[in-house]
Amino acid sequence: MKIGVFDSGIGGVTVLNELRTRFSAHDYFYLGDTANVPYGTKSPSQIRQLARAAAERVRTESVDALVVACNTASCLAIEDIRAVMGTTPVFGVVEAGVATVVQALKKSAPHSPVLVLGTRATIRSHVYATLLAGEVGDKINVIEQSCPLLVPMIEEGWTDHPILHQTVAEYVRPHIESHPGIALLACTHYPWITAAFRRALPEWTIVDSAFAMAETLGRGLPGIRTKSAGQGKLDWVFTDPDSVPKGILAGI
Amino acid sequence: MKIGVFDSGIGGVTVLNELRTRFSAHDYFYLGDTANVPYGTKSPSQIRQLARAAAERVRTESVDALVVACNTASCLAIEDIRAVMGTTPVFGVVEAGVATVVQALKKSAPHSPVLVLGTRATIRSHVYATLLAGEVGDKINVIEQSCPLLVPMIEEGWTDHPILHQTVAEYVRPHIESHPGIALLACTHYPWITAAFRRALPEWTIVDSAFAMAETLGRGLPGIRTKSAGQGKLDWVFTDPDSVPKGILAGI
Repeated sequence: MKIGVFDSGIGGVTVLNELRTRFSAHDYFYLGDTANVPYGTKSPSQIRQLARAAAERVRTESVDALVVACNTASCLAIEDIRAVMGTTPVFGVVEAGVATVVQALKKSAPHSPVLVLGTRATIRSHVYATLLAGEVGDKINVIEQSCPLLVPMIEEGWTDHPILHQTVAEYVRPHIESHPGIALLACTHYPWITAAFRRALPEWTIVDSAFAMAETLGRGLPGIRTKSAGQGKLDWVFTDPDSVPKGILAGI
Repeated sequence: MKIGVFDSGIGGVTVLNELRTRFSAHDYFYLGDTANVPYGTKSPSQIRQLARAAAERVRTESVDALVVACNTASCLAIEDIRAVMGTTPVFGVVEAGVATVVQALKKSAPHSPVLVLGTRATIRSHVYATLLAGEVGDKINVIEQSCPLLVPMIEEGWTDHPILHQTVAEYVRPHIESHPGIALLACTHYPWITAAFRRALPEWTIVDSAFAMAETLGRGLPGIRTKSAGQGKLDWVFTDPDSVPKGILAGI
């Protein structure tokens, strides 16, 4: 089986790495549309056009499933991507995050808060809050916090820097006094700093996009194998390769 | 006299504010091309096209001078802008910064280092180092440091936040042990945090873009008046007004 992973940039590499760890025997193809990153500031029609073009590119690789690891494309263009991919199953990171939080809520105390952390564009869209309320009902207590400095800090390589830890603490401080709940890291860059969130929210359940997507594929993709020896093949394409930090490529 | 100020985004507001303080009797028109910000990640031909379109818009305001407060447009499109503006004088922020550092060097110790601080795109272009070497000769000691987290922090409103001060300290730390010199804040957002740079580099001469442009207009624009009562008119246009933080508009 061959699994495609698409993101507007490099963030989806966290999802790719988690899938390759969990489902190692399969082959993977990664497409990072770095020539057009970030999608979050573009118009919906432009985002849909870029997402369709990306799906066309992935389709030429004859994948058996496509993971859309881009929050913006998952929100605005998942049906366009499905139209291009035909009968190939398509898994969006937004649906995966929502489903994994819903699972976690079943195991947690009633009325546990759900803290959604993401970029300014994701938080402004209220997509996670809207979908969670749709799944769980209006009694759900969703708190939304945009964290616009975290992606630049991660791209600066400050994933374990004291300033990163202070910044995470600053973002979660207004919410930490509510009783512990579930924190959804709703940005595909954040799995690189999941440890920082665990430190800042010690009693909370942390759900990151990489974990959520691995859970979702494990539950929903027929033929996926967890317990198998060997490592499948990996190919990747970045539409503007020069813009990709060397450390990211080394970490794939 | 009416002076136009153009930037790709909101950073040029620092330059506008400095000019309106220093040369208050004149009228001003500000154009922020926020629909297309940031220019730094676009191709040279696209930047030149956007800059020409911006200049056409400013020309309809019948300004007597145009200040280009955008580093990217100043580097790549200043001649395109001059072609559109005809006989109207055009002042670029890069030329202004270089000229102001050259003036400061004349008053400082021989071999004083010049520390250029800017966004990743500006530092990668080496434009300030190249132009300074062209003006002063190869004996000049230019140090370049990119500070990619500062614009996001300023846009987050953290202009006097402890994390901002620590981040500035982190960026200048590798260079502070050389003997004090001239620090050129080569990004139009940085005048909002000039105080943080003064704190981090206490014995250094700090040249920011707003100061540099005011100096340059004071020296080079015939008819500009410093000592005059009254406040001229101000009009502004942002090509995507909804993306402009309310605090910025309130501060104009």
